[in-house]
Amino acid sequence: MSTENQQKNQKEYHKQATGEALRTVQRRSSEQQLKLFGACFCPFVQRVWISLEVKGLDYQYIEVDPYKKPKLLIDINPRGLVPALKHGEWGCHESNVLLEYLEDITEQHPLLPTDPKSRADSRLWVDHINRNIIPGFYRLLQAQEMGKQTEFAQELKMEIAKIVDAADADGPFFLGPDLRFVDVSFAPWMIRLSRVLGTYRGWPAAAEDSRFGKWLKAIEEHEAVKKTTSDHKLYLDSYERYAENRPNTSQVANAVNSGRGLP
Amino acid sequence: MSTENQQKNQKEYHKQATGEALRTVQRRSSEQQLKLFGACFCPFVQRVWISLEVKGLDYQYIEVDPYKKPKLLIDINPRGLVPALKHGEWGCHESNVLLEYLEDITEQHPLLPTDPKSRADSRLWVDHINRNIIPGFYRLLQAQEMGKQTEFAQELKMEIAKIVDAADADGPFFLGPDLRFVDVSFAPWMIRLSRVLGTYRGWPAAAEDSRFGKWLKAIEEHEAVKKTTSDHKLYLDSYERYAENRPNTSQVANAVNSGRGLP
Repeated sequence: MSTENQQKNQKEYHKQATGEALRTVQRRSSEQQLKLFGACFCPFVQRVWISLEVKGLDYQYIEVDPYKKPKLLIDINPRGLVPALKHGEWGCHESNVLLEYLEDITEQHPLLPTDPKSRADSRLWVDHINRNIIPGFYRLLQAQEMGKQTEFAQELKMEIAKIVDAADADGPFFLGPDLRFVDVSFAPWMIRLSRVLGTYRGWPAAAEDSRFGKWLKAIEEHEAVKKTTSDHKLYLDSYERYAENRPNTSQVANAVNSGRGLP
Repeated sequence: MSTENQQKNQKEYHKQATGEALRTVQRRSSEQQLKLFGACFCPFVQRVWISLEVKGLDYQYIEVDPYKKPKLLIDINPRGLVPALKHGEWGCHESNVLLEYLEDITEQHPLLPTDPKSRADSRLWVDHINRNIIPGFYRLLQAQEMGKQTEFAQELKMEIAKIVDAADADGPFFLGPDLRFVDVSFAPWMIRLSRVLGTYRGWPAAAEDSRFGKWLKAIEEHEAVKKTTSDHKLYLDSYERYAENRPNTSQVANAVNSGRGLP
């Protein structure tokens, strides 16, 4: 990375949540057995953060500066990846694994349905989000040529249409009136689609009376989502370097550029 | 695809298991509520197949010819991907989702541990297999230049070393004396490492007294693995087209070539 880019990246790098998310960080700053290591802009972190809030678990939020990772985190996870949870002496990472862990440790507000077939359906749609929607989001955000942007936008819309078609007809959430597993996994990208892709790639705002529009509105208005979401500007700043596809230390951007799967 | 390659692919394409796996297919051919749609060479299918055998569930095995997909499969899964399970009228696909489903429908021979922290650890190592080991396997198998082959072989060895280091010291399996979740997810690639990469990429045989060698031996000798494994030749034939990197209809090979994540 050139020094100029390095300075620019560091300058843009928000090291603290803003808005509602900042108030949550402050409320969740006291020492607890269960600790979430996060980064304020990171959508994978927000998944786990939403789940913790929905379940009403006592936890401590610790913001991780990727240029200065805390020893507590390195101890449980040498690469210092976030999201990570520390629970007593034990620690783990990867948002999907952590979401399942939170399902396993408490019966409060389960996000997965109880019927095995419905559980499998929910996991299958999360797999679709992970495998098709998320890589499509970053591909579009990083594409510089207009032709590629158009192509990737079409692909992303098609992948999103599939999950919208599979959603409960009335909603507003994926399985009906309540926020569940698929919603939690998709919510951080739904927010970033309108905020980040809207600004950088002209992604159209969802029509309010469309199924997706109704879903997005319910997501944006859900307490646990609001409590873990920063102000618009933080996301715009954080994703500017992706949108301009500048070299940076983000593993996601590098993976997309090198043609490997997401880390 | 050129007609010549098409003919060659079709010729090499095994449409029926061989050896022990064929005897299992025959034993599992009668109509059952629970059906596994599989392809005899496919490692993702073998994961689900091993789990069904370990749990001792009644199921029907249906071999899918990818050039002539059965309507029963298309009904539950329009792209006709395998592995797929049909259970009554309901169906689902994706090996990881199906392995969790089998955990959820029966308490017979659970593969995931009961302690939530150990469950998370197992899921994290399966994630490592999916994200780092499997793509590394196909990258090495498809690499044509010697320099690339050396580079990818080193990378793959490093990723395998991580999971071996995390395994129970005595073993022989990942968590100790019994075959569990991580073993089932890794087993099909452990078998293919020695059989396929050994032949096509000079992958060295594991030293019998090494931790990996001990693990591989226990995998190869496990009843459920043996019952779902065909003769060597079937795998060598099936992967020849990957090793020569010829155009084909395999989604995995195309994904690696196009630099996208695995389907």
